[in-house]
Amino acid sequence: MSSSTSSVPMKKQTVPENEVQQVQLLNGVEDLYQGVVVEIKEYIDSSIFIPLLRASLSQWKQQGKRGVWIKLPIEFSHLVNPVVQEGFRYHHAEPDYLMLVNWLPYTPDTLPVNATHRVGIGAFIVNNNGEVLVVQEKSGGFKGTGLWKLPTGVVNEGEDICEAAIREVKEETGIEAEFVEILAFRQSHRSFFGKSDLFFICMLRPLSFDIQKQESEVEAAQWMPMEDYVNQPYNQKHQLFKLIAEICKTKSESNYVGFSAFPTTTASGKKTYLYFNSSDFSKL
Amino acid sequence: MSSSTSSVPMKKQTVPENEVQQVQLLNGVEDLYQGVVVEIKEYIDSSIFIPLLRASLSQWKQQGKRGVWIKLPIEFSHLVNPVVQEGFRYHHAEPDYLMLVNWLPYTPDTLPVNATHRVGIGAFIVNNNGEVLVVQEKSGGFKGTGLWKLPTGVVNEGEDICEAAIREVKEETGIEAEFVEILAFRQSHRSFFGKSDLFFICMLRPLSFDIQKQESEVEAAQWMPMEDYVNQPYNQKHQLFKLIAEICKTKSESNYVGFSAFPTTTASGKKTYLYFNSSDFSKL
Repeated sequence: MSSSTSSVPMKKQTVPENEVQQVQLLNGVEDLYQGVVVEIKEYIDSSIFIPLLRASLSQWKQQGKRGVWIKLPIEFSHLVNPVVQEGFRYHHAEPDYLMLVNWLPYTPDTLPVNATHRVGIGAFIVNNNGEVLVVQEKSGGFKGTGLWKLPTGVVNEGEDICEAAIREVKEETGIEAEFVEILAFRQSHRSFFGKSDLFFICMLRPLSFDIQKQESEVEAAQWMPMEDYVNQPYNQKHQLFKLIAEICKTKSESNYVGFSAFPTTTASGKKTYLYFNSSDFSKL
Repeated sequence: MSSSTSSVPMKKQTVPENEVQQVQLLNGVEDLYQGVVVEIKEYIDSSIFIPLLRASLSQWKQQGKRGVWIKLPIEFSHLVNPVVQEGFRYHHAEPDYLMLVNWLPYTPDTLPVNATHRVGIGAFIVNNNGEVLVVQEKSGGFKGTGLWKLPTGVVNEGEDICEAAIREVKEETGIEAEFVEILAFRQSHRSFFGKSDLFFICMLRPLSFDIQKQESEVEAAQWMPMEDYVNQPYNQKHQLFKLIAEICKTKSESNYVGFSAFPTTTASGKKTYLYFNSSDFSKL
């Protein structure tokens, strides 16, 4: 015989021992937001998984859990459809897994958004003769336009902006360089798969000068007189490009101050760079 | 009988009419990178879809196609497993669809990366008495610490940084404001699902002063004397927070110059903001 101490009025229930069931639940890890994360690590047939999932959801709902996450490695893609049938939706995917989520409460969901931006860099480098390092690319939107442009590239996952600029310049032109400042950046939207794009113009200081261009991506690379770079018809015709070229020119000739990179740590102890106008801020 | 005008030597082939087959292929849209995008828009059984996919892949391979993309709305999740079995991997997912991709050539893939960053803002606003607008949050990492912090929030998909700052301040505190400058930003990694985070400190100018706090997220909000804000023990103990507080204080007292937002358009005609030091750059 069992009795209840709950404040909710209940009938006393008699549960004969041979009617008691052991209910198996999925192993979920609780997160900081009253959620549960289930990561599938071994093959399991959907005929076994789905009853387990149903029992677990029912339990978690009673416990007041909110977001239930299922991380499915791609080798277990046979579970995607059955899990969707249980009311889960996609949250995000990487090459090797799919993350599904189910918001249990009846209130609007407060689930975190997926990543929204890709980050790119353009590198502005001037040699001792006041010439700019420029390239022409083998593919992409500027192929065949004749435009000599700053070396550009995409910041890798987990990579710092200031390090990405150095890496891209080395890869595309063979030039070694060190980071100086971020001169400007732009944000644009719907640039790929509906996602947005942040593009940072980084000034670097060259540590070597002999160009060895990357065969796969770069059609040509050279040091180009500043005026020639700025005055290219394409740069003169498009305001955004003109502004960027003029900002670079201003930087190379006078006291334009961008944001430098100060290495520090987040509250949780992770390495981070804070970018700011360190000229105007001398209280470090 | 068919003959070939190809320059490749071929045997003449005789194809009796009753052996000619009509091969059905998937409708794919070509992209700018020798790729094909297939979007599934109607229910199709996998027993019909997979043979079509195989025939199409074979054809596209012969045509020198590289990336083959399949966009699968979540209502057709029954095709995920069959498509993965044909060699596709996940590229990205949003709540209502999964994008799969298959790189056909034997060379390393040059497929674009998925979005890598989430973008957030912190808003620095000072009233005419030199007091800062600060809040305490009902949830999140700072709950219960007693820290009075700048209003913060996540930039929505497709939203400009300068507009997100205005929106978040209005939502959390009821204060109307206009954008002035980005004072600093930090980049940190592995902050959610392995993704990175860019966080921009935006200075705004208040256009109203009566606080009406958001009930759902904000525990308390107030105008706080600058010194009290900066001198909070948490801000003094953590270098990143101390730096940000000191940069804000410097901005409110002297000539610290950040990046202002200049509206312009990309080469393809999309609206974009270029952020830069417009004080040092007077050639607009």
